[in-house]
This record gives sequence, C-alpha cells and structure tokens, in this order.
Amino acid sequence: MRKAGAQIKLGAFLTATGQHIAAWRHPDVKADAGIDLQEYIRVVKIAERGKFDMMFLADNAGIWDRELESDGRSSRAAYFEPITLLSALAAVTERIGLVATATATFNEPYNVARKYASLDHLSGGRAGWNLVTSANEAEAYNFGFDVHLAHADRYARAREFAEIVIGLWDSWEDDALILDKEGGRFFDPQKLHMLNHKGERFTVRGPLNVPRTPQGRPIIVQAGSSEAGMDLAAWCADVVFTAQPALSDGIAFYKELKERVRKVGRSPDDLKIMPGLSPVVGRTREEAQAKFQELQDLIDPVVGLGLLSSMAGHDLSGYPVDGPFPDLPDNNTGKGRLKVLKDTAARENMTIRQLYTRIAGTRGHNLVIGTAKEIADQMEEWFTSEAADGFNIMPQALPGSLSDFVDLVIPELQRRGLFRREYEGSTLREHLGLSWPHTRHALARDGRNAKPDAAE
Amino acid sequence: MRKAGAQIKLGAFLTATGQHIAAWRHPDVKADAGIDLQEYIRVVKIAERGKFDMMFLADNAGIWDRELESDGRSSRAAYFEPITLLSALAAVTERIGLVATATATFNEPYNVARKYASLDHLSGGRAGWNLVTSANEAEAYNFGFDVHLAHADRYARAREFAEIVIGLWDSWEDDALILDKEGGRFFDPQKLHMLNHKGERFTVRGPLNVPRTPQGRPIIVQAGSSEAGMDLAAWCADVVFTAQPALSDGIAFYKELKERVRKVGRSPDDLKIMPGLSPVVGRTREEAQAKFQELQDLIDPVVGLGLLSSMAGHDLSGYPVDGPFPDLPDNNTGKGRLKVLKDTAARENMTIRQLYTRIAGTRGHNLVIGTAKEIADQMEEWFTSEAADGFNIMPQALPGSLSDFVDLVIPELQRRGLFRREYEGSTLREHLGLSWPHTRHALARDGRNAKPDAAE
Repeated sequence: MRKAGAQIKLGAFLTATGQHIAAWRHPDVKADAGIDLQEYIRVVKIAERGKFDMMFLADNAGIWDRELESDGRSSRAAYFEPITLLSALAAVTERIGLVATATATFNEPYNVARKYASLDHLSGGRAGWNLVTSANEAEAYNFGFDVHLAHADRYARAREFAEIVIGLWDSWEDDALILDKEGGRFFDPQKLHMLNHKGERFTVRGPLNVPRTPQGRPIIVQAGSSEAGMDLAAWCADVVFTAQPALSDGIAFYKELKERVRKVGRSPDDLKIMPGLSPVVGRTREEAQAKFQELQDLIDPVVGLGLLSSMAGHDLSGYPVDGPFPDLPDNNTGKGRLKVLKDTAARENMTIRQLYTRIAGTRGHNLVIGTAKEIADQMEEWFTSEAADGFNIMPQALPGSLSDFVDLVIPELQRRGLFRREYEGSTLREHLGLSWPHTRHALARDGRNAKPDAAE
Repeated sequence: MRKAGAQIKLGAFLTATGQHIAAWRHPDVKADAGIDLQEYIRVVKIAERGKFDMMFLADNAGIWDRELESDGRSSRAAYFEPITLLSALAAVTERIGLVATATATFNEPYNVARKYASLDHLSGGRAGWNLVTSANEAEAYNFGFDVHLAHADRYARAREFAEIVIGLWDSWEDDALILDKEGGRFFDPQKLHMLNHKGERFTVRGPLNVPRTPQGRPIIVQAGSSEAGMDLAAWCADVVFTAQPALSDGIAFYKELKERVRKVGRSPDDLKIMPGLSPVVGRTREEAQAKFQELQDLIDPVVGLGLLSSMAGHDLSGYPVDGPFPDLPDNNTGKGRLKVLKDTAARENMTIRQLYTRIAGTRGHNLVIGTAKEIADQMEEWFTSEAADGFNIMPQALPGSLSDFVDLVIPELQRRGLFRREYEGSTLREHLGLSWPHTRHALARDGRNAKPDAAE
C-alpha cells in the first residue's frame, strides 16, 4: 500500500524527434532536431514547465547496421552525444534532472566518474548516469571488438565499473574543500582519499579530480531487467527504467526488484522503479487515435522491419512479414527485450508486420492512447498497485506529444494529488526523495556500516 | 614578411582561478572558481567582449602526486572536466571558440570524435580539440597502467588516434543529410561512409553517428614542441600552442614548424602558431609590478617546489633550494618542457627558488609585466618577426588579469590595426582564417588529392 501523499515520479525520455520511428516525417517536427540545440532547449523547457523530475537521453556509440542498411530511410543515425548535450542544457535550465546514458562496456570508469561529477557541479546537483552495457555489434566494431562481450561478462564488467565510479565519487568527503586563503589551505588532506582499486578488469588509483558534488553524487539509473540486470540495479541503482507491457508484469517485477533491494540491506524507498510509458493524448479518444494513426501512416516498411530485427537481435527479413512472429532462440542481445517482444506477440497473436507497427512508437514500452483522464487512470492504477513508483514518459513526436502531456495529463495528475505542483528542492536527489549518500569514509568514521557502496 | 592587414589571433587560457599558482589566495579571486559555472560564464564573457578567437582549457585526468602531497596547499586538485564545461558555455556564448584538451593516451578515438563533433554542433561551429599525450604517472594510475607510455609510443598512438578521429569526422559528407519528409529519405546513403580503420593499435569501423559539423570539423590544437610533437602538428594541427621564452627561440621554432607544414603539402597559413603569453598589465609599469608582486608574495614554498618538480619530471626536494637548478637528465616527461626550464635557468643563472618563483605565474611561458603599450609592443614584435601568428593569453588571476588585458591591451592592438574590432564570422575556423576542410570523399570524387588527411 502507498503511504498517504505519495506522488508519482516522472522522467521525460527525449529522443531527437521523438520515440516514434516515423516522427521525423511529421509536418510539426523538425527533422534534424537531434542536432539542433535550440530545439532541445525548447523541448526541455516544456518538460521543466511540467515539473518533470528529469529528462533522460538514451545512447548508442555507433550506427546500427539496420540504420546503415535502411537506404537512408532511418533518422536514428545522427544525434548529439548525450553528455555534451546535457551539459549545454544544464546552463539554460533551473530544476529538471539531467540523465544521460554511458556504456560501461566501451568507456573507462575514471572518465565516466569525472564527466558526471562535472555535470553535477555544472547543473547544481541535477546529474544522473544511466549505466548500460552494450549489446550491439555496431558499437563493438567502433572499439576494436569483432564480437561484443557475452551477457555475463558485460554485467561483471559493469559491476566492477560501477564500484569504481561510486568509489571515485567518494574521493572527496562532503567538507573536504576548506578554501582558507589566509592559511593557504585549499583542502583538508585527511578528507581526500585514494581509491586504490585493483580488480579483475580494472586498476584505478584515484582520487577523482572533481570534488564532492551538490547532490553528494550523481543519481544512477539502470535499465536491465534480466537476472544480472536486476542484481546490479538492486545493488547500486537509484532509479530503474524498465519495459513492462502489462500491469501484472509490472507488479511482479516491482515486487521482485524491491525484494532484492531489501536483501542487500538498502531501503526499498531508495530505488524508484519507473517503467516506460508512451502516451498519445487527445481531448477525445478519437482525437488521440487519429494523432497516432497519422504517425503510423508514415512508417516506412524498410525501417519498421529493421527496428524489429535490431530489437530482437535476429534478422527477420527471411520470414514472411504477414506470418506470425517466430519463436526465436535466446541470444546475446539484451535478454529482457527479446522476452518482451515474444510475450507481446504471443499475447495478441501478432504477425511480424503488426509487431513492428506496434513497436514503431514504443520500442517495447507501454503505449496508451486516450484522453488525459484515461491516461491518468492507468498511471494511477500502476502506481497504487505498486507496479511503478513513476514513469519514464516517451513522447511519440516532439515537441507536440510532450506539450500535450504537460498541458493535459499533468494537470489531471495534480488534481488527484498524484504529482507535484512545484519542485520541492533543487537537486534531482531531492525531487526523487532519495536519502543523502554518505561517503564510505564518513560512514566508517561514524562507526556505521559502509554497505552497499564499500568495495568488498 | 607579414601581408598587409594581417592580424594577431588570440586564445584565452582559462585555468580555474588563473595561471598563477597562488591566484586562488588573492582577495579578488573566487577560490573555488574551478567548479563554479557562474564564475566561468563571467570570465568567458569578458573574453568574448574582447573578441578573443577562442578560450582554451588544459586538462589532466588525475591529481598529480605533487598536489596530493601538498598537505592541502594546492588548488590544482579540483576543477570541471573540460568537455562538459565547454558544452555548458556553448549554450551561453555566441562567438568565441571553445577548445578543450583530451588525451589520446587514455581515451578511445570514437568517443573523442563524437564528443567534439557534438560540441561543434552545439556551439554552431566553435569547437576545438587540443590533442595531447599523457606524460604523468598520476593519470596512468587511473587507467590501469603502472608506468606511463614511453614518449615515442605515446606519439605513435596519438598519430593513429588522430587519423581515426579525422576519418570519423569525414564520415558524413557536407550535404549528406537530405531530410526529405515526403520521400522518406533522411540521408543520402552514398554520402555516409564507413571508416574501416585497421591499424597497429586500433580497429574502428565507423561511421560516426554525428553528421558533418558547422565548421566542417572541429579545429585541432597541438602543443608538442619535441620532434615527434612537431611532426604530428605539421601533419594535422590547425593551431600550435607552444612555450617559447625568448624571441629568437620563437623565430626558430616558427620557421622550423612552418617548413614542416610545407613539406607535408599543406599551406603554412593553415597552421597558426600561438605561443603562451602571460601578461601583467598596469597603467604604469610600477602598478603592473606591484600587481605581480602581490601574487608572488602569496606563493607557498611547498607548492612552488612541487610545481617545479612536476614540470621537470624530477623530485627536486633533495637539492638545496638556494643552489643552482641542476643539470637534470632527459626523462619520459614532456621533453619540450624540461628543455625550456633548463634554458631559462641557464640564461639567468637561477637558483631553484628563483626558478619556481618565476614559473609560478607562467609555467614556462613568457611573462610580460608592463603597460598596455609595452605589452602590445612585444606582441607586435613577435608577430611581425614571424615568431607568432597569435598568442595564447594566460591571465595570472581571474577575472582581473583578463579584464585588464581586454580593457587595456586589446584597444591598443586595435588602434594599431593588429587585432579585430568585431568577429568576422561565426565559426572558430572563420575567426582563425583557415580554409574549409573538404572530406577525403569529396576530394577523391573531385579528383583532388585527399592528403594530408586520408589514411595511408
């Protein structure tokens, strides 16, 4: 049961022209919004007007083969690198959290720790790191690998990577900077700590050359819904972004993950579960459906089939497009994603064409088409049923689908007391209602247990 | 001889509180300016008011032992990561170029190519990459190395790294984005190119997922003055940042480097040589000297000796501080830097204390203390003697030393016709007067030689 007064957390998933693969062709959309700062500023300001907890940027360090082979028909080949974009947006926004994806597979932990700590200072405590592992070959080829790492290896590396990043974020204690001009003491050397990490995959001495950040340390977001993904999230995530197509799936996942959080000794309130939700809002259901159909009519079959093949991790061009979605074997791609596709297709007995048309706007996330009341009803149901602490809202086409949500759905949630009318604090940690992350050094000195962040 | 109307190029080297190691203790300086975005915005706007071509950020991916061992007395342990900071500044500035350092030693070329291309889009064509190799152990320890790479290895890696980065920046031809909504064609697949680099150290397929940038590709800055450094610069740099203590050194270096540029088939005008210059400006020479002395009096001996040891790549604490600067053997640190120290000490027969006091404000770069006229005289002499195409101005303490330069020296240069009164264009490439960088693909199609950027 929810505590009285508990409220929904909201992220805005802002992918260039929007979540729908044909969004760039819509007349109200700027086709090259993915590399247009002014357009991104316009969009993030809509989200901030709506009091979103955070905006969220997905990422790939490469162009997928399906995009390359789309004969120029895919728009998902050209977009800003996320950490640079969020740093720019930090300078022109006030309150909204700024979460960017960086892969643990093809980066160095010192560089990641540093960039996100820097973003946290730049933004006054609004940075978040979406920790992912890289499953696609298009990325591997850009980093000297012929085949990407096996699933288990990726997660083992990600775990050690996150241990180091969190350890580096603990380099400086909260009050390590003294800035005593008279005495000539810039920092307290007792409160600056080496990391001295020596692990299976990394050796990192530290300390980080960025001091403790305004929200203690950046928020960690994790999206894995596999076993390994859930364990990693339970151990270190502040937010979990997940694809849960039906309420029953959402409830089961929520219960399972919160239980894992308890087991590692953390408070379940310190991990917020936020499934993806792609809303199409209209003043009437018919208006909403017409809006959605307008986008669906713009889907290029080459692009649709390519997207589905990519998500499944199998080339589907050999299967009959109007035949059933085949029972594909497990592979090395994100395991959670293939399962969602299979479940969705099985539940509604879908053909390949029907499935790619369905995911064109959602990529496996929950699509809701309807009035503000209907969408708010569904969000309320998921929230009160403990299937979600909040949602990552994935607008179909930008900026229109986001401003629809802000102008129509958010006021409905506010009327119900389910969403804030004003930001409560200034940091992302405060928006999310997460507890202060004491450094392992402060905890050790106070005689408290430094779990779960201490290196074992 | 200079062409009539030729003008000086200016960079602003903006290191947190300023170039002087005691700057943070000055009453007019914000001690933690290195992690204060508002302070950086204030400073860069002064540089933009002065019509500087660019601002420039140095970098280290770690805290040097000398800082760690300073007993908290060094301020050079806490500052923004440069690419995040410049991205934020891109959103709040209009014209000034934005150059950040990233090491080829501890990064992946795909990540570097992507971030700088992204910054170039964010800033409307104002990005620059200062390509360095990492010589200090404090950085190596954070990336799994016990000892840093040997000098020759670092440069071989840097060369291949730069080949890849430039190749990735050529992934998209200038007109590859079509954005044809009606026809469903986002890009022209004939104008998006794989890189397929397979070299000694890297394998990178490409293409980059950021299209051709507003200035074609970001500017490359290089700082090496060793043999290997000059060869690398001649091959790929648009700007060379160098430390040349005396006019005769500057003339010799300029002549030598421009000759190497010619030899690889590039126009010497396409590489701008900009020595560091640290000016202390007063309305009178006495006022300038008093300003400098105020900073010198704030130097902590622990910090001064530590800085000198770091720069020399030798621990000097065993030598008598009032004895002569010893004749140290070559080592694996930046070779150019040790040579400058030795030359400076020999020329003026300096003790260790005298030398660290001297470099406290300049770190081997040219210090000029005087009136605006005197400083402009020296700049004009270097420029007309072909010792410099411009200067990287290294203010002693921020923001005061920068605003002094902008308010007093720049008007004097403008009166002499040696510096712009208004920006000529909107990109950094236009400010510097560099030619458009055609992609290797466009050159090949036009039957022109794709040198010097084509992978051999």
